[in-house]
Amino acid sequence: MGVKLYGFPASTCTARVKASLEEYGVEYELVPINLATGEHKQPAYISCNPFALVPAFQDGDLTLFESRAITRYIARKYKNGVKDLLKESDAAAGALVDVWMEVESHQFNPAVSTIFYQTFVIPFFGGTPDQALIAENVEKLGKVLNVYEDRLSKSKYLAGDFFSLADLHHLTYTFYLVKTHASLVNSRPHVKAWWEDISSRPACKKVIDEMAADAHASK
Amino acid sequence: MGVKLYGFPASTCTARVKASLEEYGVEYELVPINLATGEHKQPAYISCNPFALVPAFQDGDLTLFESRAITRYIARKYKNGVKDLLKESDAAAGALVDVWMEVESHQFNPAVSTIFYQTFVIPFFGGTPDQALIAENVEKLGKVLNVYEDRLSKSKYLAGDFFSLADLHHLTYTFYLVKTHASLVNSRPHVKAWWEDISSRPACKKVIDEMAADAHASK
Ligand SMILES: N[C@@H](CCC(=O)N[C@@H](CS)C(=O)NCC(=O)O)C(=O)O
Ligand SMILES: N[C@@H](CCC(=O)N[C@@H](CS)C(=O)NCC(=O)O)C(=O)O
Repeated sequence: MGVKLYGFPASTCTARVKASLEEYGVEYELVPINLATGEHKQPAYISCNPFALVPAFQDGDLTLFESRAITRYIARKYKNGVKDLLKESDAAAGALVDVWMEVESHQFNPAVSTIFYQTFVIPFFGGTPDQALIAENVEKLGKVLNVYEDRLSKSKYLAGDFFSLADLHHLTYTFYLVKTHASLVNSRPHVKAWWEDISSRPACKKVIDEMAADAHASK
Repeated sequence: MGVKLYGFPASTCTARVKASLEEYGVEYELVPINLATGEHKQPAYISCNPFALVPAFQDGDLTLFESRAITRYIARKYKNGVKDLLKESDAAAGALVDVWMEVESHQFNPAVSTIFYQTFVIPFFGGTPDQALIAENVEKLGKVLNVYEDRLSKSKYLAGDFFSLADLHHLTYTFYLVKTHASLVNSRPHVKAWWEDISSRPACKKVIDEMAADAHASK
């Protein structure tokens, strides 16, 4: 039994896991889950993810969900002398990776996911985005990115001078963000350079190209 | 230089870190940060936590912020043959701890922190809570707790039959939640038993007693 990832390429949370698999060159099967037909709400899928959200993940007998727990499992399992995206064996470096992963979850994600939902998901289903809510979250995200700008003026990546899961976790929402709100990134030179750096890593580029193709196909 | 925690006892995020320190019997100094006077927005504090939020944490030269990154650092540093709240050396158990820590962050925390803010923080500053927002989040949290009820009918704790950081991370908001919305917990027998279990652990009880005393003192 190999590694299975349940979800679809345009999904930000599925693509987050894909990026970690691609970084480590892990072979996996992407098992498509069709949100439009409600496949994620069927008992078969709920047994993999009780919250009825994609992604879910299987490695042999082990079933996991929550994208950031899956990337951590992958990074821990496949780390090697050349690549270690968690640095758990170095107490200080590992703790800083954790700090910036938590920043992504608690400061970046709430704002960026709201902007994404309003600018992509609602129009996709024929609805009208809530412009006041977008503006409020653009302002919040700008403040968060001011902290990033300062941080990235002192170290090349968020946790230090090494690429880590803390950076990788930002990949998929930032990809969508720059399509509609590029100036949030481009007006901050260190954030811009960081984004150009991480989004052009071969593994990351592959994943965002596949996100783009899938998002385009489902239009 | 010993371990320093910046914050205050009634703060849910400060108390989350305190609980992990108390679980491992780590000596630490609680350095009080006064939100009322805006101490967290002064340069001295911002240099510890650039988001101007409590807590922050220092262990010698290492400065950390984001409560859940700090608890992870503590659990990794002080784990011993008797107590290991992360189980990182066991790939499957450690991954399930991560899954349920992510569930706390992404499913439980957004709803419970909104309820807390509306029912405690806003009235404290003389404002009027938004009852519709509370109701919406009580409903959301109920759905999340339905998943917990099912999970806790199969294992004693969230990640398995062992107490972990995944349980501990729920302590401080649940303490406030049961003061105003006890039925969310009490109507679900396994969630109720789990809450009674974790909140009566000596380390956890000490922390919530100190939260209660501090919250009362600042009224
Ligand atoms: N915190 C979860 C979030 C998962 C999530 O929100 N997934 C979205 C797709 S990116 C989904 O399944 N949406 C379907 C729905 O809301 O019904 C994770 O990181 O895995
Ligand atoms: N995700 C952060 C959240 C920290 C947070 O929101 N802290 C609150 C107190 S519990 C705070 O500092 N509030 C002050 C403010 O919002 O100005 C963590 O877990 O440390």
